[in-house]
Amino acid sequence: MKRLRITDPDFDKAFRRIVEDRRESASGVASDVADILARVKAKGDVALAEYTQRFDDHQLTDDTDWQIAPETCKAAYDALEPELRDALDLAAERIRAYHLAQIPENRDEVDPAGVRLGALWRPVDAAGLYVPGGRASYPSSLLMNAIPAKVAGVERLAVVTPTPKGQTNALVLAAAHIAGVDEIWRVGGAQAIAALAYGTDRIARVDVVTGPGNAWVAEAKRQLYGVVGIDMVAGPSEILVIADGQNDPDWIAADLLSQAEHDPDAQSILITDDPLFAEQVEDRIDVQCAMLSTRKVARQSWDDHGVMIVVDHLDQAIPLANALAAEHVELAMTEPEPFLDAIRHAGSVFIGRMAPEAIGDYVAGPNHVLPTGRRARFASGLSVLDFMKRTSFIQLDPASFQRIGPAAAALAHAEGLPAHAQSIEVRLK
Amino acid sequence: MKRLRITDPDFDKAFRRIVEDRRESASGVASDVADILARVKAKGDVALAEYTQRFDDHQLTDDTDWQIAPETCKAAYDALEPELRDALDLAAERIRAYHLAQIPENRDEVDPAGVRLGALWRPVDAAGLYVPGGRASYPSSLLMNAIPAKVAGVERLAVVTPTPKGQTNALVLAAAHIAGVDEIWRVGGAQAIAALAYGTDRIARVDVVTGPGNAWVAEAKRQLYGVVGIDMVAGPSEILVIADGQNDPDWIAADLLSQAEHDPDAQSILITDDPLFAEQVEDRIDVQCAMLSTRKVARQSWDDHGVMIVVDHLDQAIPLANALAAEHVELAMTEPEPFLDAIRHAGSVFIGRMAPEAIGDYVAGPNHVLPTGRRARFASGLSVLDFMKRTSFIQLDPASFQRIGPAAAALAHAEGLPAHAQSIEVRLK
Repeated sequence: MKRLRITDPDFDKAFRRIVEDRRESASGVASDVADILARVKAKGDVALAEYTQRFDDHQLTDDTDWQIAPETCKAAYDALEPELRDALDLAAERIRAYHLAQIPENRDEVDPAGVRLGALWRPVDAAGLYVPGGRASYPSSLLMNAIPAKVAGVERLAVVTPTPKGQTNALVLAAAHIAGVDEIWRVGGAQAIAALAYGTDRIARVDVVTGPGNAWVAEAKRQLYGVVGIDMVAGPSEILVIADGQNDPDWIAADLLSQAEHDPDAQSILITDDPLFAEQVEDRIDVQCAMLSTRKVARQSWDDHGVMIVVDHLDQAIPLANALAAEHVELAMTEPEPFLDAIRHAGSVFIGRMAPEAIGDYVAGPNHVLPTGRRARFASGLSVLDFMKRTSFIQLDPASFQRIGPAAAALAHAEGLPAHAQSIEVRLK
Repeated sequence: MKRLRITDPDFDKAFRRIVEDRRESASGVASDVADILARVKAKGDVALAEYTQRFDDHQLTDDTDWQIAPETCKAAYDALEPELRDALDLAAERIRAYHLAQIPENRDEVDPAGVRLGALWRPVDAAGLYVPGGRASYPSSLLMNAIPAKVAGVERLAVVTPTPKGQTNALVLAAAHIAGVDEIWRVGGAQAIAALAYGTDRIARVDVVTGPGNAWVAEAKRQLYGVVGIDMVAGPSEILVIADGQNDPDWIAADLLSQAEHDPDAQSILITDDPLFAEQVEDRIDVQCAMLSTRKVARQSWDDHGVMIVVDHLDQAIPLANALAAEHVELAMTEPEPFLDAIRHAGSVFIGRMAPEAIGDYVAGPNHVLPTGRRARFASGLSVLDFMKRTSFIQLDPASFQRIGPAAAALAHAEGLPAHAQSIEVRLK
């Protein structure tokens, strides 16, 4: 863990190093992934079965080897303890409500020149969602990806997920039932992304692929970008907590650890104007961490990537936050509103003392798929827009054509495109 | 040129071949581009000067070698013939008006559970725009990229453009003046994209890079996707004209040729329910094409990629159009409105007989940067959203926290993330 004070003579340099630190290692799997994609494109289901046998020790023969039926998902949902079922239902309902308000409005207007102009937003026909197997297989992540797709109006939503040795995750299946997933395919890795992008005899092609995955999955998405739409490539998670000295150190310690327990490469940063408070938080992190079942990961993340910055005035946190462009920013202070306005680059902001980041991971409503690795400078969290596209349109009548057509013809001639000019001029006669 | 009739016994197969035909060749420049990016990242301006000398025969020494001053752009604008200046001004004004209405609204609401939820849209700090040199250097393209960035509120807009042997394009400079471009750098190719993404001593890093370019530029954008935001990778242009027999064949021939003259790999497709009309259009294409200064390109595109499909009823064009997901779709018919509704996948639709595609290239207002190569299935034209990003936010008070906190804690425990649960539970006490 790094301790910085803004009054340190080399603060700027040390802070710059933190901003520029890439916690994402180049994966070196590009050529292996390219081979897998090419093989699935050429051989389809045969290649899928081979890779699934090799990587997941799962044999794809009968239909039930390939797919998990909707009834299985419903049964998993019905078998949940009531408290968990209610929690998943509440999460789904709140995520749905938040994303419903994201649906963009169509435009259809006639401008002063008499030209009809507009735009129509429509969902893609089909979306694919990657759900990791094993430890990182989270029902909350399924809800956060699947619900925006369904709210957007996507008719066919196909999940791909590896089931090592045939094992499935009951919570994820229950979440798929709640979210209305249409198909679940028991394939994973780069080969699953290839199947979604190219299509095979069994798995029909989709238009957009989203969802988290390991280095192979991320590289497959990167290579297929343009063949299908994809969500932003995601790196290790990160949180920036800006806290005054009036917080309970136990609360802030828990918030920092909640990020750290995700991944040894995750990053938790505290900025405070109270050096004593910083020390108290550090102590509480040590105490709490020792009691976590995830302590190994959390400890490593905090030791390797944790940062505590003490500033003289909390306002000094604003330019630091904008440089960090963090995925999550907590504003644990008495007057957070000016900070919400001034921090321009952040995936999501958690305002005040009662908004720990974990509430946003599950039940607040906004999406928890957010830009990492300083990408909040230019990228946004997942939304219904990732599952929709816009078609613009124009219509003219002879009068409006006479008004703006000559300018188009002049520009076409100037650009050396005579057929463009011709298509205007034949209509001006 | 291919002629198909929907009644042909092998129509489905032939049509499928057209849909799946990739006119984009794999460029094979990936490793060369990777070398250039690495070298610019390591050596900055020194590498830029070396590449610019080698590829553009232009020496970067003094400031005026590196940059084109705003005064030079203003002088280029002032020197335009009045007709052209007015045409550029009209185009800019109409593009600006259309894109202004794209600015998304922020959200800030309190939901029934008492949770404050919202989202703030903000522009990126800086955007970079690639402008090709030589033949494909179009002032209209500069306006279509630069104006949405400025409408979005981007404070710093930097153009990079190669100036082979020092040559510049007066029309492009005039367009840069109109659009309010802040910097113009005389560098091009993959090295220019690297400079924008990584920053050098002279050229500050940007957040988003847009604009057309050759295979090297496209590959550089693809490799740097994630380091910066980029617009969709673009392929050769295409048009689908759906026309009844009541059109003037000369008009439709000109429209098809206007697409063909862009690029030998461009594609023009006509669907009509009138076989005689199809023949007339074909004749008029031959006559018009012979008179074009761009006839070589237009002829090659039409011969290699042109398609004419005769259907029995115009309604049969709808599923064909959805499968093609064309960049541009013209509806040259008496009752186009049902077609606008039913064609779900298209970059932009040109409604009625008085809306040739070229009017949209220049002065209609909607963006002419549109998804190609069937990507309208999942992608949209360039808009102000490409230069903005969204920060979501949440705020709870103790009462709303008690309402939804327990569900979050239950889910965190179920996902095996105890620090997540802890950060909720310390606040529930």
